Amino acid sequence: MAGERVGNLKIVARDERSVTPQSEDFSAWYNDVVFRAELVDRGPVRGSMVIRPYGYRIWELLQADLDARIKVTGHQNAYFPLLIPQSYMQREAEHVEGFAPELFTVTHAGGKELEEPLVIRPTSETIIGEMMAKWISSHRDLPLLLNQWANVLRWEMRPRMFLRTSEFLWQEGHTAHATPADAIAETMLALDFYQDTAVETAAMASVPGEKTPRERFAGAERTFTIEAMMRDGRALQAGTSHFMGTNFAAVFGITYTGEDGTAELCHTTSWGMSTRMIGGLIMTHGDDKGLVLPPTLAPYQVVIVPIGRGEQAEATASAATELAATLRHAGIRTHVDARPQVSPGFKFNDWEMRGVPIRLELGPRDLAAGTALMSRRLSYPQPVAAKEAIPLGAAPELLATELAALQAMLTRRATEFRDDHTAVVDSWPEFVAAVAVGWALALQCGEPECEDEIKAETTATPRCIPLGGDPEQGPCVRCGKPSAYGKRVIFARAY
Amino acid sequence: MAGERVGNLKIVARDERSVTPQSEDFSAWYNDVVFRAELVDRGPVRGSMVIRPYGYRIWELLQADLDARIKVTGHQNAYFPLLIPQSYMQREAEHVEGFAPELFTVTHAGGKELEEPLVIRPTSETIIGEMMAKWISSHRDLPLLLNQWANVLRWEMRPRMFLRTSEFLWQEGHTAHATPADAIAETMLALDFYQDTAVETAAMASVPGEKTPRERFAGAERTFTIEAMMRDGRALQAGTSHFMGTNFAAVFGITYTGEDGTAELCHTTSWGMSTRMIGGLIMTHGDDKGLVLPPTLAPYQVVIVPIGRGEQAEATASAATELAATLRHAGIRTHVDARPQVSPGFKFNDWEMRGVPIRLELGPRDLAAGTALMSRRLSYPQPVAAKEAIPLGAAPELLATELAALQAMLTRRATEFRDDHTAVVDSWPEFVAAVAVGWALALQCGEPECEDEIKAETTATPRCIPLGGDPEQGPCVRCGKPSAYGKRVIFARAY
Repeated sequence: MAGERVGNLKIVARDERSVTPQSEDFSAWYNDVVFRAELVDRGPVRGSMVIRPYGYRIWELLQADLDARIKVTGHQNAYFPLLIPQSYMQREAEHVEGFAPELFTVTHAGGKELEEPLVIRPTSETIIGEMMAKWISSHRDLPLLLNQWANVLRWEMRPRMFLRTSEFLWQEGHTAHATPADAIAETMLALDFYQDTAVETAAMASVPGEKTPRERFAGAERTFTIEAMMRDGRALQAGTSHFMGTNFAAVFGITYTGEDGTAELCHTTSWGMSTRMIGGLIMTHGDDKGLVLPPTLAPYQVVIVPIGRGEQAEATASAATELAATLRHAGIRTHVDARPQVSPGFKFNDWEMRGVPIRLELGPRDLAAGTALMSRRLSYPQPVAAKEAIPLGAAPELLATELAALQAMLTRRATEFRDDHTAVVDSWPEFVAAVAVGWALALQCGEPECEDEIKAETTATPRCIPLGGDPEQGPCVRCGKPSAYGKRVIFARAY
Repeated sequence: MAGERVGNLKIVARDERSVTPQSEDFSAWYNDVVFRAELVDRGPVRGSMVIRPYGYRIWELLQADLDARIKVTGHQNAYFPLLIPQSYMQREAEHVEGFAPELFTVTHAGGKELEEPLVIRPTSETIIGEMMAKWISSHRDLPLLLNQWANVLRWEMRPRMFLRTSEFLWQEGHTAHATPADAIAETMLALDFYQDTAVETAAMASVPGEKTPRERFAGAERTFTIEAMMRDGRALQAGTSHFMGTNFAAVFGITYTGEDGTAELCHTTSWGMSTRMIGGLIMTHGDDKGLVLPPTLAPYQVVIVPIGRGEQAEATASAATELAATLRHAGIRTHVDARPQVSPGFKFNDWEMRGVPIRLELGPRDLAAGTALMSRRLSYPQPVAAKEAIPLGAAPELLATELAALQAMLTRRATEFRDDHTAVVDSWPEFVAAVAVGWALALQCGEPECEDEIKAETTATPRCIPLGGDPEQGPCVRCGKPSAYGKRVIFARAY
């Protein structure tokens, strides 16, 4: 049997390719997955990341999905310069305070020292604000709905692939409106994009909510977020949407003339989702075998491994190529692993580790029977299902159904995991126990000192006030003072 | 009549919106077009460009087209860091010499001075070379076919929107191969992407050829280019493809172990096309009314202007919305200009200036007759055709046919223009006359001093040795020495 003959190779391969179990060291598991699945590599500069083709394809799929949501609602893409005069960053007081420690500064260009240093954008509110002021004059120019796909840079002391890197890719929406109500509606619309992308596309069980005042974006009046639960119980902020009020309009002079001829300040918003989302995807679905990708975002939804030697190898390889063409024609992203130098067993482990939803084995016996042997990457709540023979003629329809079922299963699993690891708590011991393994839904006083104490003792911070929560009041879970926000707050350790 | 009543407004609008005639000042014409058509705006930093939604949409369409060509041939997209250690740039001697005067340098990050300054990528050969060295070990890892969509920065003394800006967007392909023959084949494949995109998609009449030694990319052994003719007779380099030999492999250690176990240097290539292409598009097709966009790259292929007042306005507006939905469903990018504050005449001029291929007017009489009044942006070789009534029921098919005809017409027009302005010359007076209005196909000795003299007297430079040219030898058009390259060379003034 091929499997036995190449036993040594398989063992070697497994050692090289396998990942640290999640339960042993979640952080080591994450690093093993991102590097061994060839999603990324370390760049030469501290905190920099190279996104390899397998990782970048996930980003492209996510980007296409989110871009369509952004465009269909009337937003238009544009592109603004990377380099911003240092003085721009300093105009909005909170904004500069928030970003100053993270800036990369360009002092020389074309061999000469610049008169005014330039900063590399950590976000584009200031430069887009400057242009909005130029483009908007009448109420007829509103709303102005812009979006940009770009790289931004923020100096990171403790970099982590996808989650915190000095450079990351993102989209940043920037809009201007006549009234606060319009701008708030836009802020919520953008939050919907993120929640829908996270749930429908990434199969995550994120919770939309509002940030508490201390967690707001630098310069915003209100910040909304979607928070997702990772499989170690921590929270990850996966997208944020900000209502700026007239803060940026006032400092950049973004005004419009109303129907009655008077000049008014615009109300602006900004919102962003980044490559960080890929880190969230990994930590939502992954397991001890490695990556688990939802079919919607999998570079390859199906991998076919042809099996056989000599003349049989030719027949199965050509059948695999033919099957792949049929599946691709049906819109299924399919890859044939025809590497001659590694065994089928190595390939099975490799694609499992790389999170491919469905594997098909195609050997001489399968071919004779007109079938392929299907394995699912994950099965839930049942243990992993056995391999299953599927008729080649019906493969496109069967696999499309399987992929949809896998997608739905991942969403269900993520939702159940989140709910199983979220506790409504009313006492401090309950709180401590809850944030050790997941999220605590608690009433809290909102006082900075109390938040600091909670963080010092548990490392948990307020993640958001969920939009859907019922009105509730009571004593603070920590200090007993009256609760703030009129609702329970999600507290968790966070990325 | 509406046209007369708003006569004043129309005249005001025309003054604001009209462009300098090409024959009067081509450069002023270009600037008028890019700003008034709202393709771009100036950024706050010298040489920087804001790409506005209308301009960015053209880029997205071009990008989608080129990306598909790149992917279908097995290349994979990836993303590499923006910031490169200064020392990397210095490893390849010619490369650093070529790029040193154009670099932006980051000296501070996170509030501290960096130990080693970082440069913002002017191109990514060095950092990708570093990663290739890490990823390639066996001949089985070859070819490695990578592409990146990114922003790059090169300090510009004399910036020009799209053509020369300090920051631009592009794709850069980087590949590694086992043999020189494989790498050359790849270099030519990439040149095909560019030529096909330019001709099939952008309706340009570019000529593929090889650069003479002095015009090669910094660090390349051979550089290929596509050169397109602008309507002022100048040439624009619209895409380049480079065979690096083992130059970068040697300095970055990109090696592979062959089947016989010996270590060999890889042969690499790189190739790029950028937002500069949009400048080429503008100067290939534009006329005295403004922009002319080929249907394939037009953000709006059809603009519908509903006409009428009071109750009639409602009826035509709703018919326009309905027609737009039908056309969009048929895959035609359609926009309804429903602005209440400007006259139909203003809208006609505006969309003509913005290069929309087809305009449909929809007034009460048209509606009653079940037709719309169609105007083409351009007609060639005949003068502009009169408006034509088309039946609404057949609009999707008719317009699809019209758009295809317009695309073919633009290609034919660009090709005829290029051929009419290209002269085979064998004497110096002929040469001087040819490069004053277009291109000269000449035999030349290839001596640097002779090239310098030609440039000093005419500002013309060798653009390329066309791939298709017949073998030919003879005296140099300038100095009479024996010709080099074995073929005629295109000389032209260039952007």
